[in-house]
Amino acid sequence: MAAAASYAFERTRLVRFAHCDAAGIIFFPQYLVLINDLVEDWLGEGLGVPNAELILRRRIGTPTVSLQCDFHAVSHLGDRITLGLSVERVGAKSFTLRHGCRAGGELRMSARQVLVFTDLDTHGSIEIPQDLRRALHRFTPPRFTPPEDTP
Amino acid sequence: MAAAASYAFERTRLVRFAHCDAAGIIFFPQYLVLINDLVEDWLGEGLGVPNAELILRRRIGTPTVSLQCDFHAVSHLGDRITLGLSVERVGAKSFTLRHGCRAGGELRMSARQVLVFTDLDTHGSIEIPQDLRRALHRFTPPRFTPPEDTP
Amino acid sequence: MAAAASYAFERTRLVRFAHCDAAGIIFFPQYLVLINDLVEDWLGEGLGVPNAELILRRRIGTPTVSLQCDFHAVSHLGDRITLGLSVERVGAKSFTLRHGCRAGGELRMSARQVLVFTDLDTHGSIEIPQDLRRALHRFTPPRFTPPEDTP
Amino acid sequence: MAAAASYAFERTRLVRFAHCDAAGIIFFPQYLVLINDLVEDWLGEGLGVPNAELILRRRIGTPTVSLQCDFHAVSHLGDRITLGLSVERVGAKSFTLRHGCRAGGELRMSARQVLVFTDLDTHGSIEIPQDLRRALHRFTPPRFTPPEDTP
Repeated sequence: MAAAASYAFERTRLVRFAHCDAAGIIFFPQYLVLINDLVEDWLGEGLGVPNAELILRRRIGTPTVSLQCDFHAVSHLGDRITLGLSVERVGAKSFTLRHGCRAGGELRMSARQVLVFTDLDTHGSIEIPQDLRRALHRFTPPRFTPPEDTP
Repeated sequence: MAAAASYAFERTRLVRFAHCDAAGIIFFPQYLVLINDLVEDWLGEGLGVPNAELILRRRIGTPTVSLQCDFHAVSHLGDRITLGLSVERVGAKSFTLRHGCRAGGELRMSARQVLVFTDLDTHGSIEIPQDLRRALHRFTPPRFTPPEDTP
Repeated sequence: MAAAASYAFERTRLVRFAHCDAAGIIFFPQYLVLINDLVEDWLGEGLGVPNAELILRRRIGTPTVSLQCDFHAVSHLGDRITLGLSVERVGAKSFTLRHGCRAGGELRMSARQVLVFTDLDTHGSIEIPQDLRRALHRFTPPRFTPPEDTP
Repeated sequence: MAAAASYAFERTRLVRFAHCDAAGIIFFPQYLVLINDLVEDWLGEGLGVPNAELILRRRIGTPTVSLQCDFHAVSHLGDRITLGLSVERVGAKSFTLRHGCRAGGELRMSARQVLVFTDLDTHGSIEIPQDLRRALHRFTPPRFTPPEDTP
């Protein structure tokens, strides 16, 4: 079992009946809905820019361009799972999130997601707006800085 | 606009990106997922019998046999909506729930749902178990009783 | 068991893994997705106005304002089900569809759905466009006309 | 634009209203549902073992353990997209599928998915059953074999 890392933004969710498949475990596309929900909560509560403001008023989208998921252990109906994300990279027009899902210390799923900022009227990519760029950096995990007097 | 009633069990939810269609409003089958989630929360937190215990351990299902929904006003991405339910009728093997969804005093959706208790191994209907029957009655709205001395 | 009626427009679908819940049967909100898919196929192939043309070019929506569903028998993973619809009523701004779902002569689900035509920019209801009104009438079941010489 | 490869098993699908998000394009978790549907069709029509037989009778599951998706271009409501898969690797208990989605010669999405065979009663991994192992190899793309007389 992989160790469960901690993340810059976390939310705990119930594994609902609506998430589960005929095997009684989360249907894997529903994990991606849960990740999308987490990003939505983080945009609103973490970055301070709710999806509705971003999409409806500013006409900015954040589609996913690349996604890598690893499913380490199954999640059953009724489990309480904690989903977390950290910003791994901020580029000119895109950024990378690292996700994890754990329950009771067990890592269930981990993911890496690249999202790009787009103009919703043209679907073309745009530079990350300055206010969002600053906010994104607040969720970058601190880099390890060795003590100055290390030999 | 219809008046917004209050219900015996209520939960407030965010209208998420994952709920919305190409028109930017809740896709109506997602309203039924929201109703299903509400019933799930009420089973666990209201009746004290979480879905996982009911389904996985007791092998009891509560499928919907009849549903009537009216959509009064659209709900947009980012809205905070309050979903509520009351028990309207408790029969031998089935019961009826009355649902409503409102936001800011506006009634968005109302529904009536008949659910039946079934044995999940045979899918046949069963008598409502005694512990659940007692619990169901706690969510029946009080009937109006006129004061005795009314002329 | 109710008799299985026939409908003016029908499509047969496989009950997929993605439609099923932890009980191995269609999750009821997925039935509404199947009904929505059927209406979409009928708009394009029956009425000759694909959703993309209606929504993206003509900016006309057809949201559901009322829905009544009855679930008569469960549908399992792997079943082939036939979904059908007929136009029951054509009003000034709304119309009513009657739906049924059967498999092997057994009625599984029946529904009645009222849809309204809306302007997607205002979400306000609009008169049914003339080309669509004419097309709708082609899917109205023939009324019984008694022979003229009936005593 | 990446070149669109061809695959050992392909199916063409309509981009439905139910697949699309508020931006009018496929909501990315719905792409994973489409991939899951494709694998289901291939199990039944390609390998000759429908999901219902595998899951309900043989109690064998094929959960996804790893998934890598790249979204190259957006797919809009009403597009006809062709999804394809080939078997890239057959191991002792798991196998790897390579997926692609194209429309009109344009590559929209590509993916690599690792699935494992499990006992649905224990969720533990099992050796790939012999009949399925033989069937899997029929969908492995032919390796390039240089002509024997190449200098």
